[in-house]
Amino acid sequence: MEPSEVANAVNGSRLWSRLMEMAKIGATTEGGVNRQAFSNEDIEARRLLATWSWERGYDVATDEIGNIFIRRRGRASDAPVVLTGSHLDSQVSGGRFDGAFGVMAGFEVLEAFDDVGLTTNRPVEVVVWSNEEGSRFQPGAMGSMIFAGCSRLEDFRDVVDHSGMSLYEALEKTHSALSDIPGRTKPAMPCAYVEAHIEQGPRLEGTKSQIGVVTGIQGTRWFDVDVRGSSAHAGTTPRRYRADALQEAISAVAALRQRFLDPDDVLRFTVGRFDVTPNSPNTVPERVNFSVDIRHPDGDVLDEAAEALLHVCQASMANCMISVKQIFGRGPCRFSEQIVQLVEASTRELGFQFLRMPSGAFHDALFIADVCPTGMIFVPSEEGISHNPAENSSADDIAAGTRVLARVIAELANANEGSTIGTKSN
Amino acid sequence: MEPSEVANAVNGSRLWSRLMEMAKIGATTEGGVNRQAFSNEDIEARRLLATWSWERGYDVATDEIGNIFIRRRGRASDAPVVLTGSHLDSQVSGGRFDGAFGVMAGFEVLEAFDDVGLTTNRPVEVVVWSNEEGSRFQPGAMGSMIFAGCSRLEDFRDVVDHSGMSLYEALEKTHSALSDIPGRTKPAMPCAYVEAHIEQGPRLEGTKSQIGVVTGIQGTRWFDVDVRGSSAHAGTTPRRYRADALQEAISAVAALRQRFLDPDDVLRFTVGRFDVTPNSPNTVPERVNFSVDIRHPDGDVLDEAAEALLHVCQASMANCMISVKQIFGRGPCRFSEQIVQLVEASTRELGFQFLRMPSGAFHDALFIADVCPTGMIFVPSEEGISHNPAENSSADDIAAGTRVLARVIAELANANEGSTIGTKSN
Repeated sequence: MEPSEVANAVNGSRLWSRLMEMAKIGATTEGGVNRQAFSNEDIEARRLLATWSWERGYDVATDEIGNIFIRRRGRASDAPVVLTGSHLDSQVSGGRFDGAFGVMAGFEVLEAFDDVGLTTNRPVEVVVWSNEEGSRFQPGAMGSMIFAGCSRLEDFRDVVDHSGMSLYEALEKTHSALSDIPGRTKPAMPCAYVEAHIEQGPRLEGTKSQIGVVTGIQGTRWFDVDVRGSSAHAGTTPRRYRADALQEAISAVAALRQRFLDPDDVLRFTVGRFDVTPNSPNTVPERVNFSVDIRHPDGDVLDEAAEALLHVCQASMANCMISVKQIFGRGPCRFSEQIVQLVEASTRELGFQFLRMPSGAFHDALFIADVCPTGMIFVPSEEGISHNPAENSSADDIAAGTRVLARVIAELANANEGSTIGTKSN
Repeated sequence: MEPSEVANAVNGSRLWSRLMEMAKIGATTEGGVNRQAFSNEDIEARRLLATWSWERGYDVATDEIGNIFIRRRGRASDAPVVLTGSHLDSQVSGGRFDGAFGVMAGFEVLEAFDDVGLTTNRPVEVVVWSNEEGSRFQPGAMGSMIFAGCSRLEDFRDVVDHSGMSLYEALEKTHSALSDIPGRTKPAMPCAYVEAHIEQGPRLEGTKSQIGVVTGIQGTRWFDVDVRGSSAHAGTTPRRYRADALQEAISAVAALRQRFLDPDDVLRFTVGRFDVTPNSPNTVPERVNFSVDIRHPDGDVLDEAAEALLHVCQASMANCMISVKQIFGRGPCRFSEQIVQLVEASTRELGFQFLRMPSGAFHDALFIADVCPTGMIFVPSEEGISHNPAENSSADDIAAGTRVLARVIAELANANEGSTIGTKSN
């Protein structure tokens, strides 16, 4: 059977209706979803997917952090699996496609294989990674990090949500509610991982591309910047006596913006959080604490930016003190060249317009790339909007991305079970 | 009896120990006080003052908004009273002197009159204005506004605190807890009002003045500025696609700072509140809402500044929308020239260094100036710090301010009861 025949078996309307069914769980009045990790909604979504899986005769298993694995058997039942999937949890004010698309695309691939009677050499598994978003329990990507061995569950022993419920308690509740899903310990590493996802940015739409052939994930550095001045009465304190933390923080942000003005518009510089103390209209602020998020596909550029950040911040102060602390740093990740080439070749063969691009966002694939050859397939996000109820992707693009995924997974799963698929080049 | 003799009867150590006794109520570990309006602490403070008053044989009364009036009788028991006082409520993170100084100074004046056996023509009352700070129930200065007839209690029917408790409920609780203080309706307007207060700014200390002869209260305008952009993913969204509300708000604030840079350092420009939505490190902000507080003793300058504000804000936008709304405006208030001259003459006679100055902050006096000749006496604030646990004034300065107050009140209270004290020139 030709892999393109398998791709054509992808049933776009079945996939779309399953996605819309899933989007009812945690649906918000604004048209998005609120399905935070290990919430009742997250449990309900897992139950729905498990039910669909059992109806199709797939094996379902879970591990200690609650990742779910849906297995379609292969000829060599013990061979390392070809893995695909994403996550079902959402942001508080999330959309219908972020994560859910990758999971349902993987599930559609299994169904398409069934529909055309394809038997693969290797087993294929669809994975639902737990708590990718990190909106309720920080950090995000817990499921993939623990699976890949970057973290252990015990590292998150003290994690609690806003209401004070511990991660352990929420996880226990999830396992209990889904006690008919058998547990699985120490899973073998997959032979390859391919994740389909919405782009969450405007580049595919802007270039009229239907598929993003993802080459890797850009590097990221997060900083915590703290400006300390003195609070003072807005009415009584002349300017010359002020150490106004807000005014000086604003000078720092404006200077950073100037320094990070990349003519090629590749460097991403974002101040997303800006907390003022005491934040009272008639009091000169004594403290501003703000975040800086810098991303770039080139690790050297990131190193230089981090260096410049400190100097620019210090040079912006007049009467206040400033401190800069890096709180997260991850270098750029390059996906396995063999997987990237396979995605590109499959996209060409199926006749879709595509763009080779790094991912601007993190994904579970970032961590799985540490343990096996990994790649990603993007589909366009309308107006680049994501983490928002207005997040949208067309049914056509959703189907196109899933066809590419089916083509890629079929090829990977039918490779001789002893062959090497590629090298991870993280 | 010479008025200066009365001034010398002020007992600085008694006054200081009463102030420190009062500061124990709601004392915070940082050395300040948290004694918000109609809280248990505010009730306890009222009870302490009433107890001291009864011990001295003064009449104590309260009105519908909970203002407390402590009356030392005069020869003409029905004559309009000479009123002095301030407030006992504090900011959440308030100091020991803001408000409490003016109340205790007034009480010390009554005691000094007793000590030297002074009988006055007019009654003298010490007032405790309810909820000057507005930290729990907005707006502040409720007590003086209602007394002066600028507002009615019913205007605040829907006011609730952060916990959801209504002003009415908190007020009812306060009245119940202090039901031994008789109520008083429709009080007659005083013939004069003089309020002692800490400066809450650095000018007296900077000019080595012990007394501020307050000429009025500068005009104030408050604005609510709203910048609307679009949220976007910090990693995936190129700069050219962004409508970053934080970056454009910062441009607006920087441009306003430039526009309001007064070489004479008289204009006060403060951005004290700056709220970012969604305020998440990896999301381009979709909205910033910030406050602008502008003050100046010249009403024309304020009018021009308000005009400029809108233009500067609009000119600062690139991809976002901005709206500017004035939410409060009050022109400059000039205190009664007769009272100002009496304060200045009394200060000279007692030999204290002084500065004639407008008040940068609001005070209850702002509203009472509408109904009778009004003045204020300032004492220095260490390093200009106020609304802060570190707020401090020296015992010497506290006593000096109270001596001036005693001298002024004695003169006002002994004026022939039929004479006109001055004109309100608000």
